[in-house]
Amino acid sequence: MSNLYIGVDLGGTKIYTALCDKNGKFINEIILKTEAEKGEEQIVQKIKDSINYVMKDVDKSKIKAIGIGSPGPLDIKNGLIAEPANLPFLNFPIVSTLFNEFNIDVYLDNDANVATLAEYTFGSGKGTNNMLYITVSTGIGGGAILDGKIYRGSTSNALEIGHTTVAIHGRRCGCGNIGCVEAMSSGTAMMKIARDAVSSRVETSLKNYENVTSKELFIEANKGDKVSLEIIETAMSYLGVAVSNYTNILDPDLIIIGGGISESGDLMFNIIRNEMEKRCLGPIFRNCKIMKSNLGSKIGVLGAIALAITESK
Amino acid sequence: MSNLYIGVDLGGTKIYTALCDKNGKFINEIILKTEAEKGEEQIVQKIKDSINYVMKDVDKSKIKAIGIGSPGPLDIKNGLIAEPANLPFLNFPIVSTLFNEFNIDVYLDNDANVATLAEYTFGSGKGTNNMLYITVSTGIGGGAILDGKIYRGSTSNALEIGHTTVAIHGRRCGCGNIGCVEAMSSGTAMMKIARDAVSSRVETSLKNYENVTSKELFIEANKGDKVSLEIIETAMSYLGVAVSNYTNILDPDLIIIGGGISESGDLMFNIIRNEMEKRCLGPIFRNCKIMKSNLGSKIGVLGAIALAITESK
Repeated sequence: MSNLYIGVDLGGTKIYTALCDKNGKFINEIILKTEAEKGEEQIVQKIKDSINYVMKDVDKSKIKAIGIGSPGPLDIKNGLIAEPANLPFLNFPIVSTLFNEFNIDVYLDNDANVATLAEYTFGSGKGTNNMLYITVSTGIGGGAILDGKIYRGSTSNALEIGHTTVAIHGRRCGCGNIGCVEAMSSGTAMMKIARDAVSSRVETSLKNYENVTSKELFIEANKGDKVSLEIIETAMSYLGVAVSNYTNILDPDLIIIGGGISESGDLMFNIIRNEMEKRCLGPIFRNCKIMKSNLGSKIGVLGAIALAITESK
Repeated sequence: MSNLYIGVDLGGTKIYTALCDKNGKFINEIILKTEAEKGEEQIVQKIKDSINYVMKDVDKSKIKAIGIGSPGPLDIKNGLIAEPANLPFLNFPIVSTLFNEFNIDVYLDNDANVATLAEYTFGSGKGTNNMLYITVSTGIGGGAILDGKIYRGSTSNALEIGHTTVAIHGRRCGCGNIGCVEAMSSGTAMMKIARDAVSSRVETSLKNYENVTSKELFIEANKGDKVSLEIIETAMSYLGVAVSNYTNILDPDLIIIGGGISESGDLMFNIIRNEMEKRCLGPIFRNCKIMKSNLGSKIGVLGAIALAITESK
């Protein structure tokens, strides 16, 4: 009986591969550096090597499916990694390549969707019917389970929540638009705003650092630096507006926030909840829980496993 | 064989009831004034009378289901009309009342969802997999078909799109929040902004009216009044931001806009499309059509029929 699954979390810095049972219990795992600069062929070889490594001790016939989470954009229908910003792929047929190598069914989805599936299958989202996963780190992205299924939309690009507008006269986003929540609230945005503060006349303890990142911003805010606190409060209020908008549209039971910035403590969640209380419809707000992701650095590989389980059913 | 359906479009000013076949072909119909001021009992009697009237010429056993579209908020699970703003109901058990009267299955949903179902079942949305219906009149509301099914959310309040924030420092909305798209772009909002203009020193042909409504605003804009045009352009740009946000989240094939303001001509659609082109992700924008509703004043009753058909399958 095939009841084991392989998950591959393909990222710009590492490839995390695991063999799991249907409960997400790890049987074998390996992490390799991606070394994206060495090119497509080397990365594909590393993926193959990782898969061979994690299944070396089990009968191959026991493996039901392989799931892969990759940075987008993807062409899921045709199993292609289209053109991710931090990987040297261009319309690479990862699904057929791995299927031809291993003769095991292969499923591909973007990193935000697999993280959503990880929370829904193994994390705090278990048992919910409608949930939203939001990742807040250098960028802002997300995925949603609606009526018990991952929602992908008509072009597989649904839940591009980082590029919803929250400030019509706000900052320019990398996507070209003005006022996307990613341009107002991401780690990258806060870092830029903090650096502007450092190079200005304002008095702030951020000036003690040689190179200010969003991490330093939270450290100084917690120590009482008013400028740091103000930057965080403004950015997180905009994020709260965006989260309120998603919530009024999707009416979910649960919102889980992951990504580096979600590790910064209660401040972020308090500001978001405060905006939601003001901006969400009463019954929607009262029903909807919001919490931090608990899956840590395993969320991507667990999500790839969850994808393999869900799609091979 | 039961293959006929009854739809009831319950509104604040009229009750539109029809008997249809499964293709939405009208067999019999009646419109009564709601006369909301006469109270709950009289309205319920009118609904019963309407249903009796439309089915008077057919064998009752041929009627498979009754659908009702009502202003929200509703408690759909328990079949209650909870507390609509323009009807004298308070948690009224409309579903059980009508079932007890007619012994036919009764289904209830809010007016935005039934309008969405009307477009999906009988209108331009036929054959799409993911579509969004938006109504822009005195208020702004909507519904969505996602993966081929009406999406209701966890508390049956999903798609409260009128209360998504587009202007964090904007106008106060009736819901209490600041900067909802309903407060920035609805007919009511434009009327208020136009009246402020009339009572100011600005030169505008709106001053020729005794009582300026959004209708007059569009008339004067079309005649070349710059102030009217500016008010419309600002309001519709905010609506375009909101529509772009829904689109980036839901990645639909089709957006249909109905409601009184959608009758105002191409200007509204051109402004919305322009914002979408700037603010939506490329593949999402290129795939998504946007058009005016073609179902006119029958959309509510057709939606109630569509609800009866969909839910009794």
